[in-house]
Amino acid sequence: MSDAVIAHLAAQRDTILERLKTLIRIPSVSTDPAFAPHMQAAREFLLNRLKEAGFADAQLLEGDGQPAVYASWMGAPGKPTLVVYGHYDVQPPDPLALWHSPPFEPAIRDGKLYGRGASDVKGSTVIAVETLAAFLAVTGGCPVNVRVFLEGEEECGSPGLRSIVTRHREKLQADALLSADGGRASTSVPTVGVGSRGIAALEMTLRTAPKDGHSGRYGGAVRNALREMAALLASLHDDQGRIQVAGFGSDAQPITNTMRAAAAALPFDEAQWYADFGGLPWGDPTDSVAVRLTLRPTIEINGMWGGYTGAGTKTVLPAEAHAKITMRLAPGMDPAAAQARLRAHLRAHVAPGVRLELSEDQGGSPASTLDEGHPMLRAALAVLEREHGQAAYPARAGGTLPVTAIFAEMLGMPAMKFGLAMPDEDVHAPNEFFRLSSFDEGLRTWPRLLSALGALSAEEFRRIDRG
Amino acid sequence: MSDAVIAHLAAQRDTILERLKTLIRIPSVSTDPAFAPHMQAAREFLLNRLKEAGFADAQLLEGDGQPAVYASWMGAPGKPTLVVYGHYDVQPPDPLALWHSPPFEPAIRDGKLYGRGASDVKGSTVIAVETLAAFLAVTGGCPVNVRVFLEGEEECGSPGLRSIVTRHREKLQADALLSADGGRASTSVPTVGVGSRGIAALEMTLRTAPKDGHSGRYGGAVRNALREMAALLASLHDDQGRIQVAGFGSDAQPITNTMRAAAAALPFDEAQWYADFGGLPWGDPTDSVAVRLTLRPTIEINGMWGGYTGAGTKTVLPAEAHAKITMRLAPGMDPAAAQARLRAHLRAHVAPGVRLELSEDQGGSPASTLDEGHPMLRAALAVLEREHGQAAYPARAGGTLPVTAIFAEMLGMPAMKFGLAMPDEDVHAPNEFFRLSSFDEGLRTWPRLLSALGALSAEEFRRIDRG
Repeated sequence: MSDAVIAHLAAQRDTILERLKTLIRIPSVSTDPAFAPHMQAAREFLLNRLKEAGFADAQLLEGDGQPAVYASWMGAPGKPTLVVYGHYDVQPPDPLALWHSPPFEPAIRDGKLYGRGASDVKGSTVIAVETLAAFLAVTGGCPVNVRVFLEGEEECGSPGLRSIVTRHREKLQADALLSADGGRASTSVPTVGVGSRGIAALEMTLRTAPKDGHSGRYGGAVRNALREMAALLASLHDDQGRIQVAGFGSDAQPITNTMRAAAAALPFDEAQWYADFGGLPWGDPTDSVAVRLTLRPTIEINGMWGGYTGAGTKTVLPAEAHAKITMRLAPGMDPAAAQARLRAHLRAHVAPGVRLELSEDQGGSPASTLDEGHPMLRAALAVLEREHGQAAYPARAGGTLPVTAIFAEMLGMPAMKFGLAMPDEDVHAPNEFFRLSSFDEGLRTWPRLLSALGALSAEEFRRIDRG
Repeated sequence: MSDAVIAHLAAQRDTILERLKTLIRIPSVSTDPAFAPHMQAAREFLLNRLKEAGFADAQLLEGDGQPAVYASWMGAPGKPTLVVYGHYDVQPPDPLALWHSPPFEPAIRDGKLYGRGASDVKGSTVIAVETLAAFLAVTGGCPVNVRVFLEGEEECGSPGLRSIVTRHREKLQADALLSADGGRASTSVPTVGVGSRGIAALEMTLRTAPKDGHSGRYGGAVRNALREMAALLASLHDDQGRIQVAGFGSDAQPITNTMRAAAAALPFDEAQWYADFGGLPWGDPTDSVAVRLTLRPTIEINGMWGGYTGAGTKTVLPAEAHAKITMRLAPGMDPAAAQARLRAHLRAHVAPGVRLELSEDQGGSPASTLDEGHPMLRAALAVLEREHGQAAYPARAGGTLPVTAIFAEMLGMPAMKFGLAMPDEDVHAPNEFFRLSSFDEGLRTWPRLLSALGALSAEEFRRIDRG
């Protein structure tokens, strides 16, 4: 069945590529309200394409933030039902000066399609939508039941996603989430995304006095808020990067030999990885880098500020210091518990008398993990092995895809990430690009995966192989 | 002689206050190049006032930075010659949001004149200039020979002061420096400033990678510049505030029992002092607070920043962190040696591989000390005792007045600080104010002091009483 669909997609390839370019031309930046009209334009473009393709119920799902684009086709009774996920929002294009061609004018150079959102994740989203459209055009239906769900707030942390699920729960019932976001973990071996770390956030302010002082008049006899902040933040890790917060991660799933082996199975050259980024080693040296990045939690200072930060010297003794912290959570960790342990550590380690103000609970989401015995994963690996003629690997990501955790928690569904983005495509940075070879590959592997999943009954789909 | 001058000043009081307000309205922030036109406006204002008052040679003294305003009156042969010092630059007004009225719109509330620079040190500078103008107006001359020297870089550490002295050495020959900067050490007892700590500055940047990373993709396996900055800054002191930098202060003059006794002579309620400021104790608890503030060195973090500091969350793993540090130096300490020891500590304690960039030597100045037997001090204490009807005290300051050390070193002259600022007037902080009672007092005590010094011959003036 998929061969005819693949042939149809190949024949339509240039038209589909033009559609992707049109979508990239729409600057759908979700984090900045100035781009609201473009967010709407991106939604309308996708909505129209879904209607044109035959999704009669294509519609917007409203929540507390940017609406999601939704469409369903439920004409395969007894077959699995999948939420096919993508997102239409993109990161801001700043710093603009570093782009070699304008971020919202797609340009092809050396087999790469440049433009903001090309890799993250308009490319893979268009592949997913066009695959479904081709099935409807060629076969009059899809191999599985489908609920298309294209989010508009992924790039700003999915703040309204829970409200959409709460309001439209019945439209999102499915056996699994199949995500076009969450691409390859490697440029040299094919991978399927089977998990991501969770996330939690905390913002803090220290106050050592009601107001700043003159460093000559008070210096040497009163505490300095910046020094206290430095000492407090320095207490979070030892010199090698091991977290020193009591109980932090004690609720994490113990890392088994099987988990270590899975992390080690994916070819990964640690020295090359450090050389590529230019960063310095950190974290428990008895863990592999892959384990540190995907199975261990982190506490990361994302921002820190206080006192005088302008040009020249100011002899101020600062009374106030600020920091922003996010934590990546290992599988099993509860975001609220992680926050609570960090709060307890900060309260226990702050010097007596120093006022410590911590932000309210900012939510967060747990890690997500797809069971390695899930038939969806077996099918995906087989499709990639056929496409590439080499072994494919399940891979966890260090980042967080909130929808995977939120749909698991609220709708009870497992998630698999089958995106085409490669890790070197400068997402969230200038000169983002998407390989045309990946574009073409997706127009073969997405039809094959859907066909393979359609060969299973809904019951078989849910049966985890514990072998 | 001074009574007629005091009466003249009293009659002109409102006009003089308006002149002070006009000067405060000029935002003469020296540390930030954006304020350069206002620096020029402040100079012109003072230059015009001096010319108008009868200083025929009023002029700018150029050096490597902001020019100084200069004027001389040398019509008292055989009498002492004084450099009358003030400065026309002010601290930046940040944080603006905390001001109750705009920093550069002088406002009077409850007998206090609010505005940036009102206390530090436009108020006392105007008192000094207007006292000289009144002597010229009423008596046709001054009791002593006078070289007015109004600096424009005091608030950024006087980086160009040495170059001005080098170029204009002959214009600055004098028996002593009489400073309008350096006010009272207490709000309850009158004091005369006989010494100050020195200062040195260092700015630092840490780099852990060539660019920021995504905290999901790299977090847990690469170092974070903000964490490294926190650990490095936390290493400078122990938990009680004792400096941990090897050799720092080893060149300081040993603190003798006489020095401790002098520091203890000035009435000072430590508990009240902490309660007034609202700060938390810091520094070696075996030293009195007065000793910690005036005879011990400090290393103070004035500013610290890096990563994302805007609204909301950004999951960035920062590659760069910044800090601004100043040191206060105890008597005897060499600024270059203090900087060198701090640099050595930072280089020794930064984690391997982290790039540490330290600013060039920014100069600095040593501490200064006026001999307690100097006739100038005796005269000043007597003037204050008459004004206040209570004992007056010589007092060392914790702050730094670079001109006192630089003129001592380059021109061989002792310095006395006879300013009117009180220690609670929020200098270098929001809502700086100057008491109108101090303004009025200055218009009495400055004429009396100059008359008293004019009663001495130049020879008597130089004779230190070793009794």
